[in-house]
Amino acid sequence: MPPTAPHAIQDFYPDGFATCYGCGRLNAHGLHVRTLLDGELGIAEFTPRAEHTGVAGFVYGGLLASLIDCHAIGTAAAIAEQAEGRAIGDAPAPRYVTASLQVDFVKPTPHGPPLALRARVVETTARKSIVEVSITADDLETVRGRVVAVRIPASMGGG
Amino acid sequence: MPPTAPHAIQDFYPDGFATCYGCGRLNAHGLHVRTLLDGELGIAEFTPRAEHTGVAGFVYGGLLASLIDCHAIGTAAAIAEQAEGRAIGDAPAPRYVTASLQVDFVKPTPHGPPLALRARVVETTARKSIVEVSITADDLETVRGRVVAVRIPASMGGG
Repeated sequence: MPPTAPHAIQDFYPDGFATCYGCGRLNAHGLHVRTLLDGELGIAEFTPRAEHTGVAGFVYGGLLASLIDCHAIGTAAAIAEQAEGRAIGDAPAPRYVTASLQVDFVKPTPHGPPLALRARVVETTARKSIVEVSITADDLETVRGRVVAVRIPASMGGG
Repeated sequence: MPPTAPHAIQDFYPDGFATCYGCGRLNAHGLHVRTLLDGELGIAEFTPRAEHTGVAGFVYGGLLASLIDCHAIGTAAAIAEQAEGRAIGDAPAPRYVTASLQVDFVKPTPHGPPLALRARVVETTARKSIVEVSITADDLETVRGRVVAVRIPASMGGG
C-alpha cells in the first residue's frame, strides 16, 4: 500500500514545533513517529525498542498512547493541509496540539513485530479535529484511540 | 505531607510483572514511576527528563499519559492491598493492567519543575478499579486522567 505522498508531515513542522519527544525531528532521543497520507488515511509504522515492554512479552501501554497521540496529531495536520489544496511538503505544516486522548487496550500488544497505525479524521472544524486511530500487530487490532486535536493559530507559529 | 508507608508499591510487584517501561524496577531504561500511599490517596512525583518535551517549554503529552497510566495502576494495587488488611511490602503486590486510559490536557504543563501526581480509586470491585489522577506543576493542575484498571488473577501470577 504505497502512500500518496512520500513525505512525513512531521518533516515539515515549523522548527519551534519540531522538538516533541514523540514525533519531533529535532528531538535526538525521541520516538520519531512519522505520519504519511494514503488518501484520507494517516498511516505510520513503529517498532518498539527493547525497553518498551509492559508486562513481559507485551508492549508498554504508555508507549502505545504516545504513538496514538503523535500519529493522530500528524494526521489532523496532514488532512488539514490536504483540505487546503496542498500536499505534504508544499509549505510548513499546520500544527495541532492534543486536548484529550482516549485509549482502549483491546488486547495485549505483542512486543516484537512492527506496529501499524491507521488514523482517520472523523470530525473537523477550523479549530479542531477528532481523530480515531487503530494499532495492529501482525494484522491483529490491539489498541484503539480517539484524540481531540486543536489547531495552533498561524499567529502563534502553528503554520 | 509524609506518606503513610515509606515503600512504593512498584518495589513489590512480582518479578515477572516488574519489567514495565513506565514503572518496572527491572527496566533499566524506564521511567521508574513510584507510587506511595497517603491514606486513601496514591501519590508520586516525577521530574521529566530534558528530552521529554512536547512543544518547546512544555512536557510531552505522551509522557504525561504514561505517568497517569502507571500511577493509576500502582494506586489500584496499593488500595487493594490496604483493603485486604496489608501494608505495602507485607507481601508481593497485587498487579493490575490497563483496560482504558482517558487523559484531558487542561493546560500546557511547564517543562522543568517536578510534577506531583495524586490518584484516587473512585470505584472498585474484585475484578477492576477505576482510578482518577491529577497532575500538578508548581501547584497548578495541568492534566486529569481516568484509568480502568483490571486485576490480574493470582493464578496468572498477579500477586
